[in-house]
Amino acid sequence: MDIETQIINYLKSQFPNHIGDDAVLLENNNNLISKDILIEDIHFRLKYFTPQELAHKSIHVNLSDIAAMGGTPHSILLGIGIPSQQIQYAEEYLKEFIVICNKLSIKLIGGDTTKSPDKLYLSITILGHNKGKKIIYRNGAKNNNLICVAGNLGYAHLGLLQLEQNLIANYHHDYSDYLKKPTARIDEGLFFNNCDGINAMMDISDGLCTDLEKLADSSNKQAIINLDLFNFLDENFKITCGELNINPLNTALIGGEDYSLLITINQNQYTEIVTDFYNQFGYKIKQIGYISNGNGIKFIKNNKLISYKYMPFAHFK
Amino acid sequence: MDIETQIINYLKSQFPNHIGDDAVLLENNNNLISKDILIEDIHFRLKYFTPQELAHKSIHVNLSDIAAMGGTPHSILLGIGIPSQQIQYAEEYLKEFIVICNKLSIKLIGGDTTKSPDKLYLSITILGHNKGKKIIYRNGAKNNNLICVAGNLGYAHLGLLQLEQNLIANYHHDYSDYLKKPTARIDEGLFFNNCDGINAMMDISDGLCTDLEKLADSSNKQAIINLDLFNFLDENFKITCGELNINPLNTALIGGEDYSLLITINQNQYTEIVTDFYNQFGYKIKQIGYISNGNGIKFIKNNKLISYKYMPFAHFK
Repeated sequence: MDIETQIINYLKSQFPNHIGDDAVLLENNNNLISKDILIEDIHFRLKYFTPQELAHKSIHVNLSDIAAMGGTPHSILLGIGIPSQQIQYAEEYLKEFIVICNKLSIKLIGGDTTKSPDKLYLSITILGHNKGKKIIYRNGAKNNNLICVAGNLGYAHLGLLQLEQNLIANYHHDYSDYLKKPTARIDEGLFFNNCDGINAMMDISDGLCTDLEKLADSSNKQAIINLDLFNFLDENFKITCGELNINPLNTALIGGEDYSLLITINQNQYTEIVTDFYNQFGYKIKQIGYISNGNGIKFIKNNKLISYKYMPFAHFK
Repeated sequence: MDIETQIINYLKSQFPNHIGDDAVLLENNNNLISKDILIEDIHFRLKYFTPQELAHKSIHVNLSDIAAMGGTPHSILLGIGIPSQQIQYAEEYLKEFIVICNKLSIKLIGGDTTKSPDKLYLSITILGHNKGKKIIYRNGAKNNNLICVAGNLGYAHLGLLQLEQNLIANYHHDYSDYLKKPTARIDEGLFFNNCDGINAMMDISDGLCTDLEKLADSSNKQAIINLDLFNFLDENFKITCGELNINPLNTALIGGEDYSLLITINQNQYTEIVTDFYNQFGYKIKQIGYISNGNGIKFIKNNKLISYKYMPFAHFK
């Protein structure tokens, strides 16, 4: 029996009645669907991702898209292209993939398993449902909305640089797990979805500036980032940026793969939402700017518009 | 603007209101979903697939899964990993992808676009709905059902061998389009879905024997292939097999990628279904065997069980 058949049989044994036909019937209403691909040496490296870490990341990266739509994930399709030298790695990946799906009550309902010439290739399609009264899109930002972030900014980027330089042990603080094991903010997405006063929401995968610009463009608005608000950058973060010879503020602005949630909040509901959020999740929403008429993103410091050049985040150079 | 952003903007311009958020909301009930990945040098080669042909094939391979469930496709998600040296190829691919989707009234609703280190990766998730009274799964085959095929057997495999040997012009007949431009049998799938008397259905992507064995296993039955029924192999086919130094019968049994439909039919309804099918589609359903108790596939010739060894189809060696 070839390796693809073995894998499919294994997956079937783990998710009986859900795998095997050419397509699967979805019976839920209000299905959300999203798809992400991860390619070896573009999105991850085998030399520092264990199969278990990669399983976690590949699922959570996709979950984050459902989280950002205020949804609850229920089903997943996995496409995997396996190079012949990575069969054992792929098997361990699949085992952990199933463990995580089971923990999250997500059913594997289909996919595709094939050989790959040289790189490991993952393609995940995830489905969720939204039970809220509405869906919050990224195009709903209104004038004077406060731009806020739930989650870290730049942490995963520090982890990436540390791992790429292969010098984790020499750093003051280890950020590698922020890159390797991001956690989709499903509960936070549900919370925001049920709030009045959240006008726009998306996840931050490509970095704050890049993704905020997308949100602003979708909404036909301008996003003003207030650099004075970035006082949440802590000492560990600044020390590690120093060790990596990079600017902390710029890292928070451009670092990708933190999978934080980016939201815009109506000013009238801001205090209530921030308080409720802290009471429920134990960490603070960060306010980083506001929405106005115009387009693109602008920066202010000391209440004045300033010119601030940033380089967008890139994966491996 | 980087190439990924350019591509996403281009896709957005072609499918307004459907692309851009983290996930998309499906509003139809009874959604069928399927996913297939295609990897350069595993499933296709750039040297003999034009971008237009690859667009056709990558869509129809996926459509075929919806066809095999008696569904009508409505939406598609495209994941594409693009090596830097294939940006122009990818752009032409995407243009044709959109043309084909529009022709088929399929909406592009999401996906993921990224770099790839060296090979072109395609991952397509397709959604359809099934409006029939039932869905025909591959696990419904019953004793004495007649096993039938709608479509070609082995044609795409001849095309593959011809293309791999780079000698198309020297062959008696050119089979390359059967490999490069298979057409999903959507209308046939709908027809079967609306018939009484079709107990099991799937598409043939990996070859008749391999896929029939899956159907038999799913149904907890045995499939008996009657080799005497393979008199539909025509002269062009046999001549080309001779030129390629391969056995025609074996090629029909194992050749993959024809995307024909494999069905099992209740004997009582067989004549009516075959007649109606011919009247509607202008080609004949091929009967190739029957279902019985047992497991796996067996072969008969002159009404006797015989031992017949076949090698399963593989993509490029």
